[in-house]
Amino acid sequence: MNTSVIRYILGWVMLIEAAFMLLPCGVAVLYREQVGWYFLGVCLAELASALPLIRKKPRNNIFYIKEGCVATALAWIVMSLIGCLPFWLSGEIPSFTDALFEVISGFTTTGASILPSVEALSYCMLFWRSFTHWIGGMGVLVFLLAVLQMPGGFHMNLMKAESPGPSVGKLRPKVRQTARTLYLIYLGMTALEVVLLLLGKMPLFDALTTSFGTAGTGGFGIKNDSIMGYSPYIQWVVTIFMTLFGVNFNFFYLLLLGRWRQALAMEEVKAYFVIIAAATGVIMLNIGRGVMGFADLLRHAAFQVSSIITTTGFATIDFNLWPQASRTVLVLLMFIGACAGSTGGGMKVSRLLIILKTALREVHSYIFPKSVRSIKADDKALSDDVVRSTHVFFVTLILIFAMSVLCLSFENADLVTNFTAVAATINNIGPGLELVGPTGNFAPFSPFSKYVLMFDMLVGRLELFPMLVLFYPGSWKGTFSRPRQAKQA
Amino acid sequence: MNTSVIRYILGWVMLIEAAFMLLPCGVAVLYREQVGWYFLGVCLAELASALPLIRKKPRNNIFYIKEGCVATALAWIVMSLIGCLPFWLSGEIPSFTDALFEVISGFTTTGASILPSVEALSYCMLFWRSFTHWIGGMGVLVFLLAVLQMPGGFHMNLMKAESPGPSVGKLRPKVRQTARTLYLIYLGMTALEVVLLLLGKMPLFDALTTSFGTAGTGGFGIKNDSIMGYSPYIQWVVTIFMTLFGVNFNFFYLLLLGRWRQALAMEEVKAYFVIIAAATGVIMLNIGRGVMGFADLLRHAAFQVSSIITTTGFATIDFNLWPQASRTVLVLLMFIGACAGSTGGGMKVSRLLIILKTALREVHSYIFPKSVRSIKADDKALSDDVVRSTHVFFVTLILIFAMSVLCLSFENADLVTNFTAVAATINNIGPGLELVGPTGNFAPFSPFSKYVLMFDMLVGRLELFPMLVLFYPGSWKGTFSRPRQAKQA
Repeated sequence: MNTSVIRYILGWVMLIEAAFMLLPCGVAVLYREQVGWYFLGVCLAELASALPLIRKKPRNNIFYIKEGCVATALAWIVMSLIGCLPFWLSGEIPSFTDALFEVISGFTTTGASILPSVEALSYCMLFWRSFTHWIGGMGVLVFLLAVLQMPGGFHMNLMKAESPGPSVGKLRPKVRQTARTLYLIYLGMTALEVVLLLLGKMPLFDALTTSFGTAGTGGFGIKNDSIMGYSPYIQWVVTIFMTLFGVNFNFFYLLLLGRWRQALAMEEVKAYFVIIAAATGVIMLNIGRGVMGFADLLRHAAFQVSSIITTTGFATIDFNLWPQASRTVLVLLMFIGACAGSTGGGMKVSRLLIILKTALREVHSYIFPKSVRSIKADDKALSDDVVRSTHVFFVTLILIFAMSVLCLSFENADLVTNFTAVAATINNIGPGLELVGPTGNFAPFSPFSKYVLMFDMLVGRLELFPMLVLFYPGSWKGTFSRPRQAKQA
Repeated sequence: MNTSVIRYILGWVMLIEAAFMLLPCGVAVLYREQVGWYFLGVCLAELASALPLIRKKPRNNIFYIKEGCVATALAWIVMSLIGCLPFWLSGEIPSFTDALFEVISGFTTTGASILPSVEALSYCMLFWRSFTHWIGGMGVLVFLLAVLQMPGGFHMNLMKAESPGPSVGKLRPKVRQTARTLYLIYLGMTALEVVLLLLGKMPLFDALTTSFGTAGTGGFGIKNDSIMGYSPYIQWVVTIFMTLFGVNFNFFYLLLLGRWRQALAMEEVKAYFVIIAAATGVIMLNIGRGVMGFADLLRHAAFQVSSIITTTGFATIDFNLWPQASRTVLVLLMFIGACAGSTGGGMKVSRLLIILKTALREVHSYIFPKSVRSIKADDKALSDDVVRSTHVFFVTLILIFAMSVLCLSFENADLVTNFTAVAATINNIGPGLELVGPTGNFAPFSPFSKYVLMFDMLVGRLELFPMLVLFYPGSWKGTFSRPRQAKQA
């Protein structure tokens, strides 16, 4: 394990986080909040710890996928451990476990909260809480790649470890350009949403924080009733932007280049919209006639479907009270998730397509045992390796999922609560059903269960393997005792 | 599609079923039950329909895996359609859907019942109901292979389609010998259980039906309270035999040959016992001190764990009332299932091991990207094809599972009921939780849901693909319109 390069990357990540913390400081100044000092304090302390780490360039540039995984997993853990300090030190979230849970939920764009009342937080805390979604949505290491020139192998292996989806789509030949383009699209769309929300007479603070939550597909609201209290116009704007942020960013890049036809032919994006339309339709039929008008029904169904499939987790209605078929549809959407290459979580639509196609191919192979049919995506044959790793991803997800549900079950909450609490965290959604439904929260869980859920959030956001590599003893073999041998590994 | 050979096989299956139906006729004579005439009537009608089908040998012997799948799936459907007639015609189960559900549940060794009171049935009906488990446990086609000399390719492709597990273990060089050996072990162990139950002063009728239910890992009881009313001795005998029938039959064959060391080294069997011990331990700790004595606790925990992991479904206690962790453990066991090559259902321990090993290998590949580690079982490297098909099996199982839960959800029963109803049928267990718990039954579901669950039972028993091939339109392409071309396919 090349520890010097990991140290270097961690230093930069801390520096960036310190810089980002200046924003809540600014908010505190605007609203004249005393608790803003905690942000300044943590920011300065983080800066002071980061500088020695980056002063010395790494001794060697060996940087394999293992180092990429460990650097990414550690970066997210360190970022969360420091990011939660203002909440805890200020006493606005008195328990350290809860503060850590909240900020991991923020960075991983989950949006699961332990706060019974969000509105009790000060403005700067609310701002930071929502801003963690924005940082986590595109990824802090992708940001690092966009701003910093790094030696060769670094780029791709960091990008691979942090980016969602079965394969990293390089938009442009160089990783740095790709990272910049991604962030520019991200920033542009966030800005557009803010403007549209302001046009709907939403206050600026609300528009900013809501846009951060939408852009990162996070779902932290600044109101106890999430988005329920806002006007239908605002709810529609949020619906549309949630859906857009769940689209593969390659789609937008192709649009920017004027390659409409290629963009519209993207299989995953088409499937994503078909799933959204179908789920919305089923839920509308299931809730049915009489309860509310067609327009309201469409708005609530579309909002909740977009919110869950993009793994955002905002709510305009308590969907825990919906009839079973609608609840079941939402649980299925939790696992499907958004498109690869978006800010959304979950398994991703492209993986679902690969899985469906392999099941069909298997049936086909029984009928024509000698035919060799490769699995295609966008008319290109996928390598066996992509198919294999998609399967391994899926089975590993289910294994971690099952173990987590078992861990939670010792608290004796009902199965649906445990099942959806894990589904909502490992897929980075936020609210589940029953006790963790849109009007509930994660506070009642024991610290043990909360740490299990924190692990699930990180494991889900980083797509399983970086976290598993970090905790796999074999990764560290020889790192501390025999540094020479480790380099060869 | 070679329809002539499928016709021929279906004829033989019907002949065998007709012969088996003489047993309940005998029971009816013993107990002087008038309803026995229905068995004789159906038996004669089946005989009359079967004879023309087998009189003419098939025109050609082309018999690929496709024909194996279709023949197997159709055989099970025909067997069920005819096997349910005595229940329905006699009026003891007034609805045809319910009668079909009950007999599919029997043949697939599921043991899910639509009967609110089992004890209302006559003896011959109870006998047939339990005997379907015994037929279905080892498989009617395996029986056919044991008694009938068939041309070449038939054997292996039928065996593959009907036998559980990721790969068919041929105990002996010839399929016919293997099938005979399997049935001899099966018969011997069933007889041993009957004797041991009789020694516990169980009435002969109860001992026979309980042994059929145990041997096939089915779970139909002849009492409304399943096995709860019998003595602890009897419950322990059933526990031990359930566990034994969940073991890979290769294990017993090796024991018979005196190859103890090789038998005891079987990885899957070891893992199976470790899982049983661990699950029993967790449940005992979870239910805990005070509720009952250690001996009772051990007995109930071991019984329920064996019953669920072997997918039998007998109960000595209403485990639906157990605390959440114990319920969750049982739900996980539902998916694990018994060993491959046993009469049990579920995913199978060997598949779980393969899945766990691939997840570990994936982590390993991040650390040593250039190393190629093959996945081993019993120290032999598994081919990529076995690993791949295990993955495909798992993802397809989850896809069918999710779709079935969605279908059931339109009835508005709670999620746990729907989830465990599908889990209990697709894994061929029987009882689930909540409304379909050990004291509940499947009667309240609508006919639509019942047909979904029947499909799940068949799909689970035949390990997914035979049923999917049967219903895949491509399988039948050209069969009826252009018979010449189909032969080439």
